[in-house]
Amino acid sequence: MDSFERIDAEKLRIFTATILEKVGVPPDDAAVTADVLVLADLRGVDSHGVARLKSYYVDSIRNGFTRTAPERRKVHETPTTAVYDGNSGLGMPIGITAMKDCIQKAGNLGLGFAAVGNSNHFGIAGYYAMLALPHDMIGICFTNSAPLVLPTFGRKVMLGTNPICVAVPAKKERPFVLDMATSIVPRGKLEVYARKKEPLPLGWAADESGLPTTDAAKALQAVALMPLGGDREMGGHKGYGLAVMVDIFCGLLAGSAFGPAVGRTKVSHFFGAMRIDAFQPVDDFKENMDQMIRDLRESPKAEGQERIYVAGEIEFETEAERRENGIPLHPNVFETLRGLGRELEVEL
Amino acid sequence: MDSFERIDAEKLRIFTATILEKVGVPPDDAAVTADVLVLADLRGVDSHGVARLKSYYVDSIRNGFTRTAPERRKVHETPTTAVYDGNSGLGMPIGITAMKDCIQKAGNLGLGFAAVGNSNHFGIAGYYAMLALPHDMIGICFTNSAPLVLPTFGRKVMLGTNPICVAVPAKKERPFVLDMATSIVPRGKLEVYARKKEPLPLGWAADESGLPTTDAAKALQAVALMPLGGDREMGGHKGYGLAVMVDIFCGLLAGSAFGPAVGRTKVSHFFGAMRIDAFQPVDDFKENMDQMIRDLRESPKAEGQERIYVAGEIEFETEAERRENGIPLHPNVFETLRGLGRELEVEL
Repeated sequence: MDSFERIDAEKLRIFTATILEKVGVPPDDAAVTADVLVLADLRGVDSHGVARLKSYYVDSIRNGFTRTAPERRKVHETPTTAVYDGNSGLGMPIGITAMKDCIQKAGNLGLGFAAVGNSNHFGIAGYYAMLALPHDMIGICFTNSAPLVLPTFGRKVMLGTNPICVAVPAKKERPFVLDMATSIVPRGKLEVYARKKEPLPLGWAADESGLPTTDAAKALQAVALMPLGGDREMGGHKGYGLAVMVDIFCGLLAGSAFGPAVGRTKVSHFFGAMRIDAFQPVDDFKENMDQMIRDLRESPKAEGQERIYVAGEIEFETEAERRENGIPLHPNVFETLRGLGRELEVEL
Repeated sequence: MDSFERIDAEKLRIFTATILEKVGVPPDDAAVTADVLVLADLRGVDSHGVARLKSYYVDSIRNGFTRTAPERRKVHETPTTAVYDGNSGLGMPIGITAMKDCIQKAGNLGLGFAAVGNSNHFGIAGYYAMLALPHDMIGICFTNSAPLVLPTFGRKVMLGTNPICVAVPAKKERPFVLDMATSIVPRGKLEVYARKKEPLPLGWAADESGLPTTDAAKALQAVALMPLGGDREMGGHKGYGLAVMVDIFCGLLAGSAFGPAVGRTKVSHFFGAMRIDAFQPVDDFKENMDQMIRDLRESPKAEGQERIYVAGEIEFETEAERRENGIPLHPNVFETLRGLGRELEVEL
């Protein structure tokens, strides 16, 4: 029975922060980490939210992989760039620090970019890119991740799902927020199909030979996701190229791990902020954004379709609904959280 | 009979420049424009080379769309950014000017970005991004283009094939040069299938209703290309999102046309340069690039595959071969060039 419990976002945030504090995370770091996780749930990216609180964060802290009090350091700096060493800490606090640094540099000089190495999973890339929006800046965020994706013509996973996020403010319309993995689908989608014992759409994933499979169980065994585009004929080499690009901006510019060496405590991120008025008057630009968004939304629909979406639109609508009505938690997630709560004496 | 004539690259470059001079392009502009076009042919991007000399450039100059002596202006500038107005001139000279400006700004402050509006088609994006490589910088180049691509769930083309190019230097290995349209295939591919009367791979293009078609002739009538990823299930909303992102960086940051308003003399470009040593020591970075490239190349192949490529590799190999043996020109292209030559009294 998949009856989803609805839980108030603010309560979930406090619960999450308190759990993190109980396992040793300093209050400020716990607060921002909880904020990132709960925003994922609010925006409907349930795979990247509190569902991972135990497996990705609490367990990793308890097993000594993730440090609760890392010595985070800015290891290099110029007026427009910075490089940080996450020292195996949580990805969220250092991610926010680095993005704020970009915003400050862009405030001074128009552009600010930062790479972060030796970090951990930081939740949704959109959180960081969107920090630029109130400053009338374009926000950029990439991250590499543990290998799950095949290079075109390969059968060994060499790249993460390496997402690209770009957030751009509009005036009356909601911001444009593209936040996309460079694989066709994330691993979680295979799990859904495996549970339902349904065949995968051909092209999402490959088996151990590197050939496409519709067998979700086989695909999960190899955990070989195809890059955006799929096979060569459908442009998969482009998704593969984008994944490598993200790894260069993250792993290589941070001087940290890259390719198949990326894994827990060896994740790297890249952040950027660009001041809009370094190019155009802010008001003109935002009015053009409104126009572009409306033009797309109102353009003629394909047969059988009723709506054309702009990147981020569905997530903003989900967020508005869930802020009002609470976040629906899958029973398994709810049970895991309640278990954590009982153990650490935090009420959910 | 498709017997391809081989022609020496340097001779083709001089011929192309001379033709452009004959229709009124100043010698310096003609030289760089020819250089961009012939590099496309050298790298095997035949669709973007001298095959378009007549239709895209000479005819457009003769019809008064493209100005041969435009008043190119830098309309805005900060220490890290610039905006140019191409004033309906050729895309190549102003593209090179803007990219060199980025390189100079990055030389001073680590990063340099520029947007160019009111321009024309500028050939291959890779040309500009690769200008950053000898300076130990990462080069970035986007351009918008006339509408050919559908938004997900739409049936009216609202976006160009809006390419993304990122060039990154390595040490002993060849540079990483990702130069990709954000559609699955360019329009030219449909033309090839239409000529051969072969069915299109399902998903490349749509008919007038916005639904996928394998009929190349129908697809060409609607000229409705699908964004990278194809339909929604295969991640087409990501390719669509990338195309919008490119349009924002080009059309909107340049304060020029965007979306379906993009067309001749209303094309915009975006350029960027990032100094590697603003992040990491150049030598360390380049050695890591070598390692990454070798790791990918040497990783296990999918069943039936013998080689894994890194972005740009095929183009560099083609370039080496064609510099040695000359550029093979399709008989139709050769005939068109010879016709231009006869008319303007330039020997091919």
